Amino acid sequence: MISIGVDLGGTNIKSALIHPEKGVIKNVSVPTEAGKGLESTLNRIASAINELKDVAEDSVKGVGIGAPGMISLDRKSVYNPPNLPGWDHVELAREIHERTGLNALVENDANLMALGSARFGSGRPFDYFIMLTLGTGVGGGIIIENKIFRGATGAAAELGHISIDYHGAECNSTVPGAIEAYLGQRFLSRNAANEIEKHPENQLYKDFSGDFSKLEPRDLSEAANRGNKLAVAILEDAGRKLGYAIVNYVHTLDIRKIVVSGGVANAGDFILKPAYQAAMERLMPPFRTDFEILPEILSQEAALLGAGTLALENL
Amino acid sequence: MISIGVDLGGTNIKSALIHPEKGVIKNVSVPTEAGKGLESTLNRIASAINELKDVAEDSVKGVGIGAPGMISLDRKSVYNPPNLPGWDHVELAREIHERTGLNALVENDANLMALGSARFGSGRPFDYFIMLTLGTGVGGGIIIENKIFRGATGAAAELGHISIDYHGAECNSTVPGAIEAYLGQRFLSRNAANEIEKHPENQLYKDFSGDFSKLEPRDLSEAANRGNKLAVAILEDAGRKLGYAIVNYVHTLDIRKIVVSGGVANAGDFILKPAYQAAMERLMPPFRTDFEILPEILSQEAALLGAGTLALENL
Repeated sequence: MISIGVDLGGTNIKSALIHPEKGVIKNVSVPTEAGKGLESTLNRIASAINELKDVAEDSVKGVGIGAPGMISLDRKSVYNPPNLPGWDHVELAREIHERTGLNALVENDANLMALGSARFGSGRPFDYFIMLTLGTGVGGGIIIENKIFRGATGAAAELGHISIDYHGAECNSTVPGAIEAYLGQRFLSRNAANEIEKHPENQLYKDFSGDFSKLEPRDLSEAANRGNKLAVAILEDAGRKLGYAIVNYVHTLDIRKIVVSGGVANAGDFILKPAYQAAMERLMPPFRTDFEILPEILSQEAALLGAGTLALENL
Repeated sequence: MISIGVDLGGTNIKSALIHPEKGVIKNVSVPTEAGKGLESTLNRIASAINELKDVAEDSVKGVGIGAPGMISLDRKSVYNPPNLPGWDHVELAREIHERTGLNALVENDANLMALGSARFGSGRPFDYFIMLTLGTGVGGGIIIENKIFRGATGAAAELGHISIDYHGAECNSTVPGAIEAYLGQRFLSRNAANEIEKHPENQLYKDFSGDFSKLEPRDLSEAANRGNKLAVAILEDAGRKLGYAIVNYVHTLDIRKIVVSGGVANAGDFILKPAYQAAMERLMPPFRTDFEILPEILSQEAALLGAGTLALENL
């Protein structure tokens, strides 16, 4: 038995045939063209699914779909996904069933990255772990007893919106000092630009002062790799703040394995090492035992694998 | 079938016969006399249990014991409970069985307050809720699907040690800006004294400037009740900070019912109302639906009831 996983983003719809052991068998990616509206996007999702169904050599159990935004407790509907205008409340499972004849379930994309990691990635050895996705925003998923922890209504693990400073920086969150305000890609870049502006002698100033909006976290890690101390310090500061947020997660949940994925996570040890050190300094002693921060070994595929797994295990 | 619940504190050992519907049938309280050492305290616990067992009119299923500090995952052992010198690692369940012939389980006292609340108190209507205990320290328990959530090793819900300000105040925690540093009884009193010192015209200054160490949260709520605006402002500030911590819990767990118990909670609306307002301002909109902060209706008995329930449901 196999399934179809879909990762619905504002730019691309990624989809794949997913096998419970082999993982991705075949994948199809099409542009979302969100601007053309809901109907158009639904039809594009459905034709990607139908294309995969037609080439499947095994029977397809159903479809799992990862979407940004809030998901209903029954995993059938999506509410206000960011970057998808016109999607106020979409009964996505029903719309897909009507267009493909396949049963479908929807889940938050960060939760599905956690599930993908649990079955195929860095989370595999652990029954309990926390997935942090460091991208445009900061997302999270919590795995408890090998399953996605959903909370009372299905909205658990908004881990980017945990404040580490109640009078701290604002971001596109209702929460001042939310960790997303320090680690989200845009905020990290902006904070870095503010620092670099103070150091006209630094190579990063020379490279980006013409247009700081072009500075990306990747530029910081590349500069850090070349020994640029300012870049190292900027990433270290962001990493330590991530560590402070992680202390809050660990003291709440008693889950001591943290898996980090996403673009910003590619800064690797420049962020994760100071995060680990800051957390170890501040965790209560019993929580330091077995505490670990690991990068996700799967790259883009984690969410797709999680989406396929959702269908395989829950339909 | 009934059980025996024990609430082991640094000052008193409280114990009671617990009936699953009627709650406390008969209780016995004896001083802990922790200074006399481990053996003495174990014997005192055991004789309280034996006394209750002898008067029980129904068969006793076993003993549930609430203790401060870390508890082993199998609920048999206690590690380093504060206020009990010499208790580095005690196999409490075995020690009690040897002295009483009854099977026993141990659990963290804040977790048992949550369980007691879930079966007999304010938590009764909810399958998911968070218990906050505002006393000398700030403790917590998390109820998920009507059971204590224990995390990966049994140490979950150290909710007093969640930082709301990474460069904030120190307390007897490894975490600067931990919510305990603002709401823990001693810290709240000390912060209040610092404020009152700036206002020699205030009645609280007149009453306590001779010895600010005598100022207790109760004095603040009594003054607030009499219309003392400074007292109101101090409690409001503490309440708002509690609200910020609650936002972190809610965004992590998607649990929207918060039950608050303990001495400081008796300041009631002076703390809980600003906590609610601050949380509602900062919660992401979907989490505001059904969000509620409630005082615990059980007083001292919550932990005892939880301890008895633990034995009834798990032995």
